Amino acid sequence: MKLNVPAIIHILGLLTALNGFFMLFAIPVSLYYHESVMGEIGMAGGISMVTGALMWFVTRKKSRVLKKKEGYLIVTLGWIILTVTGTLPYVFTGAIPEFTDAFFETMSGYTTTGASILTDIEVLPKGILFWRSITHWIGGMGIIVLAIAILPILGIGGMQLFLAESPGPSADKLTPRIQDTAKRLWILYVILTVVETVLLMFGGMDLFESLCHSMATVSTGGFSTRNASVAAYESPYIQYVIIIFMFLGGVNFTLSYFTLIKRNFKKAWKSEEFRTYTGLVIFISLVMTLIIYFGSDAGGSFEKAWRDSLFQSIAVITTTGFVTADFTQAIYPGIMTIILFVIMFMGGSAGSTGGGIKIVRHIIVAKTCFIEFRKQIHPNAIIPVRLDGNAVHSKITYNILAFFLIYFGLFGIGSLVMGALGSDFATAIGSSASALGNIGPGLGEVCPFCNYAGLPAGSKWFLSFLMMVGRLELFTVLILMTPYYWRRT
Amino acid sequence: MKLNVPAIIHILGLLTALNGFFMLFAIPVSLYYHESVMGEIGMAGGISMVTGALMWFVTRKKSRVLKKKEGYLIVTLGWIILTVTGTLPYVFTGAIPEFTDAFFETMSGYTTTGASILTDIEVLPKGILFWRSITHWIGGMGIIVLAIAILPILGIGGMQLFLAESPGPSADKLTPRIQDTAKRLWILYVILTVVETVLLMFGGMDLFESLCHSMATVSTGGFSTRNASVAAYESPYIQYVIIIFMFLGGVNFTLSYFTLIKRNFKKAWKSEEFRTYTGLVIFISLVMTLIIYFGSDAGGSFEKAWRDSLFQSIAVITTTGFVTADFTQAIYPGIMTIILFVIMFMGGSAGSTGGGIKIVRHIIVAKTCFIEFRKQIHPNAIIPVRLDGNAVHSKITYNILAFFLIYFGLFGIGSLVMGALGSDFATAIGSSASALGNIGPGLGEVCPFCNYAGLPAGSKWFLSFLMMVGRLELFTVLILMTPYYWRRT
Repeated sequence: MKLNVPAIIHILGLLTALNGFFMLFAIPVSLYYHESVMGEIGMAGGISMVTGALMWFVTRKKSRVLKKKEGYLIVTLGWIILTVTGTLPYVFTGAIPEFTDAFFETMSGYTTTGASILTDIEVLPKGILFWRSITHWIGGMGIIVLAIAILPILGIGGMQLFLAESPGPSADKLTPRIQDTAKRLWILYVILTVVETVLLMFGGMDLFESLCHSMATVSTGGFSTRNASVAAYESPYIQYVIIIFMFLGGVNFTLSYFTLIKRNFKKAWKSEEFRTYTGLVIFISLVMTLIIYFGSDAGGSFEKAWRDSLFQSIAVITTTGFVTADFTQAIYPGIMTIILFVIMFMGGSAGSTGGGIKIVRHIIVAKTCFIEFRKQIHPNAIIPVRLDGNAVHSKITYNILAFFLIYFGLFGIGSLVMGALGSDFATAIGSSASALGNIGPGLGEVCPFCNYAGLPAGSKWFLSFLMMVGRLELFTVLILMTPYYWRRT
Repeated sequence: MKLNVPAIIHILGLLTALNGFFMLFAIPVSLYYHESVMGEIGMAGGISMVTGALMWFVTRKKSRVLKKKEGYLIVTLGWIILTVTGTLPYVFTGAIPEFTDAFFETMSGYTTTGASILTDIEVLPKGILFWRSITHWIGGMGIIVLAIAILPILGIGGMQLFLAESPGPSADKLTPRIQDTAKRLWILYVILTVVETVLLMFGGMDLFESLCHSMATVSTGGFSTRNASVAAYESPYIQYVIIIFMFLGGVNFTLSYFTLIKRNFKKAWKSEEFRTYTGLVIFISLVMTLIIYFGSDAGGSFEKAWRDSLFQSIAVITTTGFVTADFTQAIYPGIMTIILFVIMFMGGSAGSTGGGIKIVRHIIVAKTCFIEFRKQIHPNAIIPVRLDGNAVHSKITYNILAFFLIYFGLFGIGSLVMGALGSDFATAIGSSASALGNIGPGLGEVCPFCNYAGLPAGSKWFLSFLMMVGRLELFTVLILMTPYYWRRT
């Protein structure tokens, strides 16, 4: 198959131009705070818009028919081109002088990971911090479209599963209704962002910090404007608001749309994924609370133990990665680190902005394993896996099992590479799991209250790659590395 | 279904009596070394034989027809009853006064794990150390029958796969030919043990130590009679002999039978599992050698680096667990610990005495994942997984994928439980992976040159459970915990 290169460039141009346009939003922030970086930000935006427009313009008259196979390339290249142009504001203003660091920080933004190489966040111009938060927000928007409309068509890792529930697209072809769906979900995304911003301002945060944290929450990103992350805000009110919106960020947006906008609450409770997600969050938080309250030297009230546990468990499960307490520290029992490590492999709901393996895949895998036990006793029985009452096609189950195993394989390879690049045991496995799951904080040298600045350049590039692979549900990127993709058929 | 309890007791009685008979072999050793523990060992053996004989005798007139379902129970209970009676020599002689410790040490023996709670091995009576090595050897014998004849019939985790290659049983029913197969493979097992013993004696070991190490090698167990494990023998000759026999312990015994006894060398090279196993061992050892030689403070010649790497990689991959060098120590780069940790999930060949996931399952999973990529591009293609040129039934592939995921799930749960029982991060994940894979050494507090003595009693019981679950290929034990097993049909 010959790839339709002009059509690919056409779309990438559009993305690049849009990205440049988003940079301009940082200018009024800089203006308000009397910073001298408006020129550099404007230049970054301008270059991106002009480049993008040129790419778009020179390819405008070519055929725009795209095949499924080109989808993988567009999504992957799109993510890379957003990241490359997204580094410009950091590089031009000198906020992050090294390109490697800027690339890591930007990839961490667009993939809504939230891992940072910044050692002192608070000294940076507000305009730059605002741009940093916007990268999360754009990434989250991108993920919603991907998950609802594009990945299911590319046939990736069971993303077909919740299609029947979606307020728009049909299962097998790109129709105009996708634009419709995307629009509705983006409106919800904007509403959530605005509501959280307002609620945070009620808690005493200023507009800038509220908006930045709000964009980082709804996208399950996790960049904070403070060095101490959310621990800098001691107000329980603020922390509970963020808890609620992190939780919402980890819910399937289609489901939230029906529940919050259409007020169809039954739908939420009928969803096995939502029930499992909610149940797990509560169960894990409770266990953590009891361990902290009765078994640690951290001190504090029961409410504080509960709030920290709820915050950290939701922050890791939804892959947001905000921090109010560092459970890997010695004042907490060792089991807390192990719990954090294990829940790094859970992930949010499919169709949410959360990364990682995703709850629905865990459900399918758990059911498949239980069915294997039944089959052991009744070898000839045909027992389909059911989700929300419907039988799941064995092709999809198969694909999900493969997804899981590739995920673990990548985690193992990732740990080995990080180790080979000089990281110790805890840092290697923690950073590998964190990057792949788009979480942010890891273990060891990249612990929740640490940062990624000290890693060698090679590790930063490698982790950037892992973030992208994890964010694009593995197959999208990895398939480009197989001979099957490039073979002419 | 009503279980045929008398028939189950009949078989368990036979096992118990045989176990008691094996204990008697420790008496001549004690006699030779003028030790005063013969009486206690004799009593242990006598009690086991009498109890077993009674169980066997009172149930002799009942129906002996066994159904598949009873197989799971017999195998699991058999392993438990061997372990319980196997503790008697330790307890009666006071060599291991605590029952918890004795149970752990015995389970570690029969499962050919080789994890030890002994802090000073060399002070124990030789008779007891000989019994300790015999538990490995009996375990290895049991595993061979299980893998070749029983597990495939119980339909467990792809063990059907190499049935076509086996020199005896048909695939679906217990026939007298199984006895035939078992006998042939046991003869090979005895020959390997004798040959290794003789070769080790050439290297200057005495008969007692040669025989003990030989039994621990061929069974991929790993109990040594020395505190420093094989590191106590500095002779490169001895270490290379053990390397070769560990390697053979990790090969499918049916394949070894055809190759070594029938001299059909083509068969070995035709086996994908054997080629992969050999290739991986060489590749991993080479990588480790280069890292140690060029990147560590351990010093020593290139030959020493190569020998240590080959020894440790084979010791972990075959799940033997002997130690000549502790790669988790600070004189080695952090990557060595990560490599050790990752290869803990490989395992020997199916049908060998090695534990763990097994190479053939990795091959099937890797191929399945690659096929998923091809299917991404060609969604309607039907591409079977092939092994040694034959298409593998999708039922078996499915079962193997489930096996993998249950294995990782158990590893995660195991780490959490170990953490909850007070272990730190590295110890928890290291001991969990090591027990499940029947390896022996772990990380942290249970590092290769450490031991399991310091763990709380609860952890020892839990790890004993994990060892049994891992050794019996997960399903055999776990199925007894599902409602499907106990439901009347």
